[in-house]
Amino acid sequence: MNIIKGGVTAAKGFYAAGVYAGIKKKRKDMALVYSRVPARGAGTFTTNVVKAAPVKWDIKLTKESEYIQAVVLNSGVANACTGNQGEINNQLMAEAVAQALNIPITSVYTASTGVIGKQLPMDAIRNGIKLLVRSLSDDIEAGTLAAEAIMTTDTYAKECAVSFTVGGREVVLGGMAKGSGMIHPNMATMLGVITTDLAISKELLQEALSADVKKSFNMISVDRDTSTNDSLLILANGLAGNEEINEKNEDYYKFCEALNYVTTQLAKMMAADGEGASKLLEATIVGAKTEEEAALLAKSIISSNLVKSAVFGSDANWGRILCAMGYSGADFDPDKVDLYIESSEGKLKLVEGGVACDYSEELATKILSAKEVRAVADLKSGSATATAWGCDLTYDYVKINADYRS
Amino acid sequence: MNIIKGGVTAAKGFYAAGVYAGIKKKRKDMALVYSRVPARGAGTFTTNVVKAAPVKWDIKLTKESEYIQAVVLNSGVANACTGNQGEINNQLMAEAVAQALNIPITSVYTASTGVIGKQLPMDAIRNGIKLLVRSLSDDIEAGTLAAEAIMTTDTYAKECAVSFTVGGREVVLGGMAKGSGMIHPNMATMLGVITTDLAISKELLQEALSADVKKSFNMISVDRDTSTNDSLLILANGLAGNEEINEKNEDYYKFCEALNYVTTQLAKMMAADGEGASKLLEATIVGAKTEEEAALLAKSIISSNLVKSAVFGSDANWGRILCAMGYSGADFDPDKVDLYIESSEGKLKLVEGGVACDYSEELATKILSAKEVRAVADLKSGSATATAWGCDLTYDYVKINADYRS
Repeated sequence: MNIIKGGVTAAKGFYAAGVYAGIKKKRKDMALVYSRVPARGAGTFTTNVVKAAPVKWDIKLTKESEYIQAVVLNSGVANACTGNQGEINNQLMAEAVAQALNIPITSVYTASTGVIGKQLPMDAIRNGIKLLVRSLSDDIEAGTLAAEAIMTTDTYAKECAVSFTVGGREVVLGGMAKGSGMIHPNMATMLGVITTDLAISKELLQEALSADVKKSFNMISVDRDTSTNDSLLILANGLAGNEEINEKNEDYYKFCEALNYVTTQLAKMMAADGEGASKLLEATIVGAKTEEEAALLAKSIISSNLVKSAVFGSDANWGRILCAMGYSGADFDPDKVDLYIESSEGKLKLVEGGVACDYSEELATKILSAKEVRAVADLKSGSATATAWGCDLTYDYVKINADYRS
Repeated sequence: MNIIKGGVTAAKGFYAAGVYAGIKKKRKDMALVYSRVPARGAGTFTTNVVKAAPVKWDIKLTKESEYIQAVVLNSGVANACTGNQGEINNQLMAEAVAQALNIPITSVYTASTGVIGKQLPMDAIRNGIKLLVRSLSDDIEAGTLAAEAIMTTDTYAKECAVSFTVGGREVVLGGMAKGSGMIHPNMATMLGVITTDLAISKELLQEALSADVKKSFNMISVDRDTSTNDSLLILANGLAGNEEINEKNEDYYKFCEALNYVTTQLAKMMAADGEGASKLLEATIVGAKTEEEAALLAKSIISSNLVKSAVFGSDANWGRILCAMGYSGADFDPDKVDLYIESSEGKLKLVEGGVACDYSEELATKILSAKEVRAVADLKSGSATATAWGCDLTYDYVKINADYRS
């Protein structure tokens, strides 16, 4: 597997565009991803009971459509809590794309992000779709424009791509995603689009994606708020020319590995770019009895406001880490836990067998001052592991969210 | 039922003291509550897997001891994650109190709050206990000194007391509690002591307390962090002279009502005094199918960082409230929900049937600018209700917790 440049336009036959349509005040606010041939589509979506209109639409398409050929996305307005009118507007958005590209409406995924409760401004949307179709390009830069257009409070565009070989054919897989608040994904996160030129059956594409999010997007949290719009979509158009993957053979696992690399990178970018974040916080559990327990514990650490505040202050207040593990819902023996912190500045054991070691506070503070910090807890009870990613809680998080709408 | 002055010393035969023992840098850090006759004791404790030494001790006593006669409490050091030494120190603390008061060690509850992972400074503790026993008094003011001595980041002492009659006898019930971070109680909260001169069986005392916390302390959250030390303790010494309550008769329910008034007041004070809080946030669910669902929904609203940040900014970003309800785990129909906000400044309907009403943003902001704000969601699906209390998320929360230990 090679890491390559680009995002959603890295794979063969994928085009994208990102434009300013007038939904937001100034910045780009609509994106389109298009495959020149029909592609297999799969998706994972928010578990929030309150589901945005585009989420409901995509869930239906994922079940019923044989092929997907385009994804239209907007930022600025989430089209959530918008009732019947919201569903009609979402369908009009898909319809406009279908007409302009001359493809069936049932092959057009939709995705929206932004303020909840406002209706989509349909004139701007229609105008935006015209601009998007005109601007479609398979350049690397077009993928970046699309990644920029789906940003809300994100501070940078999130893209990643890799290449790998399947049956002698080079396959490319790339993606884009946006964060950065209301991030506590539960089945997927708002919003991610992955494209690949791999040939694979619809069933296995969905299975691979569903398994993957458990280890990537579902392992990050910015603020424990699971959004109404979380959607991770994948399109596989087969243009790499490999024999279609129809069983869980070596090729399938090569694909899973590539997918996991891209989704994990995007998920980590999302965590690091969490609203107001100044640091990426990684928590790894080793020596757990089961992966499920390890995941519960890792997520509980990176989700704790108290841990996040301490990381912001570079304060090695490790009791909060053990406390967060304690209320995670996982069953473990606190008296066995060893706890380490590490970063580019060094590594330090803080706790052995549930009790404080005699460590240097000065070194601990230095380690926690880095841009990426890591906590590793060894439960010494088995061989399962899990890693989760989050960010620190800062003044800026409060600032951004105290007055998001104005 | 009458609301009266005082706290843990309001009921007959209860003495208290609060002193500076030298655990913290400056402020009072030890408290003692003592009943001059043996009392029935009951308690509810944290569900955190990581339990502090005093919590383990109190759980054992609650099961095994016929009578409880004293509660010794300290702030500054939590005696959590302190291994064997922590348990020995906790027992030494109980032992010193038992000796000084000439009562069995098995009748002394202990409670600690403060930094996790540090051992109790036993010289200061022993010295503090001497001072405490010397200062015991049944004055109202002695109760306040005790309430002050258990404060950590609290900004004011939390006390409440009521009187009511049982079989012609006047009964008094009073209590104290402390907040204000790591508050997301799950069976009880850190730390509360209730005293009453009611005569009641041990079994019914425990049953009443366990039922009560579900509606009071377990319905508040400051930061979703369930502490390692949460303890709510109650002592009933029978000095009111009523016939002992041994069944769930009218007197029992009178007691439950009084208990609920005191615990709810203390819980609300705790939420309003949440770390960095500038406002009390109350969420009420009406029209739910079951109380459990209503409770899940109400707690999810007051726990959301995004809702809390919006309340801080007086921003009527109601989508975040519906979103938090959506991921609460409760099953409800979002398209039926009506949502109101209210405060001393007025009342406003924001959402009808899951969709925005045409309301005045100006009035919404005015309503949310009050010191106590309330959100009411009507699910229109049944008759169950629940209320939860929290606070806004402010710059000061981050400030307090970025560097708590220094």
